[in-house]
Amino acid sequence: MAIDIYWGSGSSYAWRVLLALEYKRVPYRSHLLQFSKQEHKSPQMLRLNPRGRVPVLKDGDYVCYESLAIMMYLDRSYPQPPLFGTTPQEAGTAMRVICEYQAYAEERINKIINVIFFQGIEGRMEEVAQAVQAVAHEARTIESRLSTSEWLVGAAPSAADFVVFPGIQLLLRALERREAQELRAHFLPMDARYPSIAAWMRRVEALPGYDRTFPPHWRG
Amino acid sequence: MAIDIYWGSGSSYAWRVLLALEYKRVPYRSHLLQFSKQEHKSPQMLRLNPRGRVPVLKDGDYVCYESLAIMMYLDRSYPQPPLFGTTPQEAGTAMRVICEYQAYAEERINKIINVIFFQGIEGRMEEVAQAVQAVAHEARTIESRLSTSEWLVGAAPSAADFVVFPGIQLLLRALERREAQELRAHFLPMDARYPSIAAWMRRVEALPGYDRTFPPHWRG
Repeated sequence: MAIDIYWGSGSSYAWRVLLALEYKRVPYRSHLLQFSKQEHKSPQMLRLNPRGRVPVLKDGDYVCYESLAIMMYLDRSYPQPPLFGTTPQEAGTAMRVICEYQAYAEERINKIINVIFFQGIEGRMEEVAQAVQAVAHEARTIESRLSTSEWLVGAAPSAADFVVFPGIQLLLRALERREAQELRAHFLPMDARYPSIAAWMRRVEALPGYDRTFPPHWRG
Repeated sequence: MAIDIYWGSGSSYAWRVLLALEYKRVPYRSHLLQFSKQEHKSPQMLRLNPRGRVPVLKDGDYVCYESLAIMMYLDRSYPQPPLFGTTPQEAGTAMRVICEYQAYAEERINKIINVIFFQGIEGRMEEVAQAVQAVAHEARTIESRLSTSEWLVGAAPSAADFVVFPGIQLLLRALERREAQELRAHFLPMDARYPSIAAWMRRVEALPGYDRTFPPHWRG
């Protein structure tokens, strides 16, 4: 029986899980929900995840949500290739990079995205600029890791790459918007300020199946 | 070579790791740092964790921080008894419970604690009451899980228990304070409102080695 994955276009959390599935080459049935139609909060979806959020995995009778939990489940169910490294040290470090991203970057990236795409930046430029600068500080640590290694942890892609990558993609998309012009100087251009991150992003984009994970509504 | 653990009394994050170590009966050298003397930000500690936070694990040459990452490392290094269940489903659900706790309860518990212990509650009662009510909502979900099971996930303690338990302990300690009298009705008494959580807390407290994990400055 194939895995069912319920996701939404542009959700960084869902993107992580799609990257993990493609990396493991696990067959899955893709259910793309329309946020604009509130499909992620339909009665059927609320039965699977009472919080009405994506991604949600259904594997036979087993249901799991929260992106990190789904990655944990996938890694135990389909151990090769591993999502959390090949040694206890790599597993610990992969989770450490994920926890640091979540503790110090994620909330700020979400704020930047929400303000730029949904709430409007008027009167909030200073607060958002501070968030961009804090994320830039975290990006320097990531840049430093990637300056000596092709992937964030160990010699192959891991859950750490799949957690961080969509967040940076969403941030870059937000910074491209006209309203974000003043903010760009804190982070861009990537190739000059974060050359190792830029090269790593191209490596992620070259992974087999990447195109299937790319947010459909971003095309064209 | 024994593991070195650097921790601080009353840190819920450090407490998780101590509970995991005792549960696995892994020998460790305990380094209790004094927050009041800023020992967690000493040059020696900043070399181990540039963020100057605890817990930090050192196992030979390997250093790890972020509580969840340390638990991941310990579970890979010393697989028995497992911290993330015995099946892929239990692993996914344990991580799901942890992620939900972190996403919906932890920040609010931290706010309640910081306001009551450090910042002062004057003028912030409404905001803190809302946080207590939101945590109470999450606690009802946990109560429901524990009404049919001795532990949060599966038939034995897991990382989910060790993540949630210290947070509830800190919350209860904050609510005991005289300044928190008005807030108590939203959460207490535990035995009446959350009898399954109360019984589960006694089970955690009865685990071997629990006393060594208990915050020293809470005694007496």
